[in-house]
Amino acid sequence: MQDWIHPHFDYLPERPLFLCVLSNTDTGKIPGLSAAGASPDLTDYTPSADAELVELHKIVTIPEVPESPEGATTPAVVTKAALSLSGVPSLFVTSGLRRKPAVPYVDMNGSAGSDIRLATAIPDVADIMDRATMLGRKLAAFSDCIFIGESIAGGTTTAMAVMQALGYDGRVSSSLLDHPLAKKQEIVDAALDRCGASFGSMRSDPLRALMEVGDPMIPAVLGMLKGLSGTKTVLAGGTQMAAVLCAADALGLGGDVSIATTRYIVEDRNASFVETVEGLGRRWYMADPGLERSKIPALSCYARGSAKEGVGAGGAVLAASLSGVTQQEIVEGSDRVLMTVELPKKSGRA
Amino acid sequence: MQDWIHPHFDYLPERPLFLCVLSNTDTGKIPGLSAAGASPDLTDYTPSADAELVELHKIVTIPEVPESPEGATTPAVVTKAALSLSGVPSLFVTSGLRRKPAVPYVDMNGSAGSDIRLATAIPDVADIMDRATMLGRKLAAFSDCIFIGESIAGGTTTAMAVMQALGYDGRVSSSLLDHPLAKKQEIVDAALDRCGASFGSMRSDPLRALMEVGDPMIPAVLGMLKGLSGTKTVLAGGTQMAAVLCAADALGLGGDVSIATTRYIVEDRNASFVETVEGLGRRWYMADPGLERSKIPALSCYARGSAKEGVGAGGAVLAASLSGVTQQEIVEGSDRVLMTVELPKKSGRA
Repeated sequence: MQDWIHPHFDYLPERPLFLCVLSNTDTGKIPGLSAAGASPDLTDYTPSADAELVELHKIVTIPEVPESPEGATTPAVVTKAALSLSGVPSLFVTSGLRRKPAVPYVDMNGSAGSDIRLATAIPDVADIMDRATMLGRKLAAFSDCIFIGESIAGGTTTAMAVMQALGYDGRVSSSLLDHPLAKKQEIVDAALDRCGASFGSMRSDPLRALMEVGDPMIPAVLGMLKGLSGTKTVLAGGTQMAAVLCAADALGLGGDVSIATTRYIVEDRNASFVETVEGLGRRWYMADPGLERSKIPALSCYARGSAKEGVGAGGAVLAASLSGVTQQEIVEGSDRVLMTVELPKKSGRA
Repeated sequence: MQDWIHPHFDYLPERPLFLCVLSNTDTGKIPGLSAAGASPDLTDYTPSADAELVELHKIVTIPEVPESPEGATTPAVVTKAALSLSGVPSLFVTSGLRRKPAVPYVDMNGSAGSDIRLATAIPDVADIMDRATMLGRKLAAFSDCIFIGESIAGGTTTAMAVMQALGYDGRVSSSLLDHPLAKKQEIVDAALDRCGASFGSMRSDPLRALMEVGDPMIPAVLGMLKGLSGTKTVLAGGTQMAAVLCAADALGLGGDVSIATTRYIVEDRNASFVETVEGLGRRWYMADPGLERSKIPALSCYARGSAKEGVGAGGAVLAASLSGVTQQEIVEGSDRVLMTVELPKKSGRA
């Protein structure tokens, strides 16, 4: 029946919980790198706007729904539709976030990540991991199946840097149609240079790799994985979450951890989502939100490769499917979310 | 059997959850007012140290276990013993807290409260209540019985101001043996004067009363009560939580809300805990931690009226009793917690 979810997810959660980590970095502000915000300066605000959209169906922090320079709307719209249709509860976690959202959140504290070309990315990586481990232990008491997504601009570049520092061969996706891969590699090279690292040279010291060239989302998710240990966990994201799995591998973190993403990531020929995840011996799931049938160009463009994934959209759709939500409901629900989201009164849509 | 809990709590929670709200105010720094910290300047740090003690059995933020000028140790020691013995999970909530703890916490944001004699106490009271309402709704999905405590220095003075602004006649307790009641009334009078209020004059506008003369803990708890509506909730505290019940009454908030405190509050002849709570038609519970049998003066002094309550100690003891923990275990557990708590390496105990 649900061939829009592939393969079959063979566990029916009793108390599913959707988490989403929100972070900022200065790497995300390098022009031309990220689609998470119409302009680099807005990327600091995108994670909070995403959280508000999901929790409130209303955006408080910025005047508009976040969208990419190409006009794709934030995947938070799909996440919101999936969670609302299924009733799966959500909880946002901030880690190195500059602008806090107008919703409740669990704070990992920590500073925003640096521009990895110029400075150590996250000096407080160990503190973030410790706090997140405590949070994971706590959450294990409340859920039997936890989905973890992210909203962080520029996250695939830091993901790429971490994979290369740790010696994993994966190719990351882009939220832009025209993948700025050469630019990303240039940034990664400069970052590795800065800290005297090269491909695989930090394999035996993964925490240092995260500290030097990572972003604050990664240790937050790793810490939660550590704390959740026995609990079934599904990372909700594409190649950024695949990089988290690489770091988990390098750290020797086990547990019942799989990964779920959208069809748009799985089918991205520039990226290596499936190979990377299978190379680590982890299970992956693909959810097809069916957005080619959306009536709104800002969503139907996903099916042509814009935006693709984020805010745990693929995992949220998977979670929704487990409580009987259909693909058609996801498509119609996403359209409805975007058409009816409340914006701050002062400003109209541009 | 458990006559140390009075009256019998006639519900056995399946998934109890202990919350504790951490806040600061400048009112709490007025000299001679509060026992939550050995000196007024330390009161900003006391809530975080309490949270660290409960979550980590270790204090990170300050060099020592918080204690009152009279030498009573923080009631967080009793809370920690109760939660550890029973396995009841805890979650800390920050609302207007200056110094964040080294543990995971849900952040209500908001600024620390003012010195109520000098300025509007919490200008962002409505935002705090809204966020806390969302948090309450969320938590209702994860627990069938929620205990809510607090750690805020100077909280009885703002509690007293709120009760008087709303026209409730209650008398608050003190964490000091020699209750500085005249000083508190002087502060309350100055605060009411400042905003043109008098006894009962804000009865019809409770939000304004909280905004002018309250503290950031009160709207956080009220918001959670609003969001939790259907869920059994036990406020864990003495006369400060009684003041929260007064404000809930003025706001017309219903729900299955009772209050639990220590024997030391119930027996405080200077305060009116029982009358105030019964006057509101709410149920109260008393837990007797039996600290007169403690081998440590900093705990046995509770039985003579020092400290008395805080960090939800009475409610935590009640929650522990429901899973079979005995009074003797609480006494011995509290002694053990205090004797073995880890302190920052740099400094020894004074």
